[in-house]
Amino acid sequence: MRIGILGSTGPAGTALGARLASVGYEVILGSRSLERATQEGTAAGGEVVVVATPWDSAAPTAGELERHLTGKVVICMANALVRVGREFQPLVLPRGSVAAHVQAAVPSCRVAAAFHHLPAKELGELGEPVDSDVLICSDDKAATSAVAEIVNRIPGCRPLDVGGLSQAMAVEAFTATLLQLNVRYKTRVAPKFTGIRS
Amino acid sequence: MRIGILGSTGPAGTALGARLASVGYEVILGSRSLERATQEGTAAGGEVVVVATPWDSAAPTAGELERHLTGKVVICMANALVRVGREFQPLVLPRGSVAAHVQAAVPSCRVAAAFHHLPAKELGELGEPVDSDVLICSDDKAATSAVAEIVNRIPGCRPLDVGGLSQAMAVEAFTATLLQLNVRYKTRVAPKFTGIRS
Repeated sequence: MRIGILGSTGPAGTALGARLASVGYEVILGSRSLERATQEGTAAGGEVVVVATPWDSAAPTAGELERHLTGKVVICMANALVRVGREFQPLVLPRGSVAAHVQAAVPSCRVAAAFHHLPAKELGELGEPVDSDVLICSDDKAATSAVAEIVNRIPGCRPLDVGGLSQAMAVEAFTATLLQLNVRYKTRVAPKFTGIRS
Repeated sequence: MRIGILGSTGPAGTALGARLASVGYEVILGSRSLERATQEGTAAGGEVVVVATPWDSAAPTAGELERHLTGKVVICMANALVRVGREFQPLVLPRGSVAAHVQAAVPSCRVAAAFHHLPAKELGELGEPVDSDVLICSDDKAATSAVAEIVNRIPGCRPLDVGGLSQAMAVEAFTATLLQLNVRYKTRVAPKFTGIRS
């Protein structure tokens, strides 16, 4: 399966692309920078497309590429965060989440939110398992299943279905909390949930 | 140390009260029900006071008891959630979080948000460790330390400092995600964060 990544020059997109390629997917990297403009359309041609742009470009980028995305599973991994002083703070967008804005920009797509909480560095260290649960939400159950299948291919990752796209607000916002832990404890955390049998 | 619990008749307040008593704290339970009205003032007399009321009573209850609470560490464990159909959804309040509203209602207190993610049943099973990280945020570092000390007394729990009270929005909202996992996987999850050395 071919997976396109929009906004692949950021640390999260780069790391996810490398990791997905390492587990056997054909990965097409796209970027908005001028010289690579054609690549973005190519990346949008993947069977599954990941939106890994900065949060404020996510919905416009998906909207511009809508003709390539119709009917596809689109995975939104962007978070709306700001740094205020030394603190990372979540922004709550008018529709609740970045993923909800992407879904509104491309209503014909099946948007899932996932991959927010994986630390980019560990994700990019291809020799090592990631050791993290990956929360997935979507209003389309088949999209959740498709993303879960991708997550299952990544060593150490476990997909967990948290329900509809209305959960994306909480999932996205919680990324700020994880970054706070990273700064406070000089580490890179990943979340795991006890009590679920794999 | 005496710990007062406001709203102690709910499952979370009951379980936390029992657990704190089991690890050696003197716990004073308060409730808003008419026949116990005097107890609420007594509970507010604890050296540390936990607000475990329903979310929409948290700030008014703290506000009414302000004269008992001045200068104290007040722990807010309430979450603003609604059930929409079969889904638990977080509400974002005008100040971001329930804890921020409590802090605004009792500005002389040192409000910390904590204990949102502990499953009540496991918390109440006093013979068993809880096995969960407990996220704490506050604008008062001494309040965070005081709560961390309490958390450290609970077997299996690890306190983690996630920063200022502005994080309470994400921490509170994430409770909805955990409830979603509980329903979806017929379990009771608790969060743990890998990558932090205890």
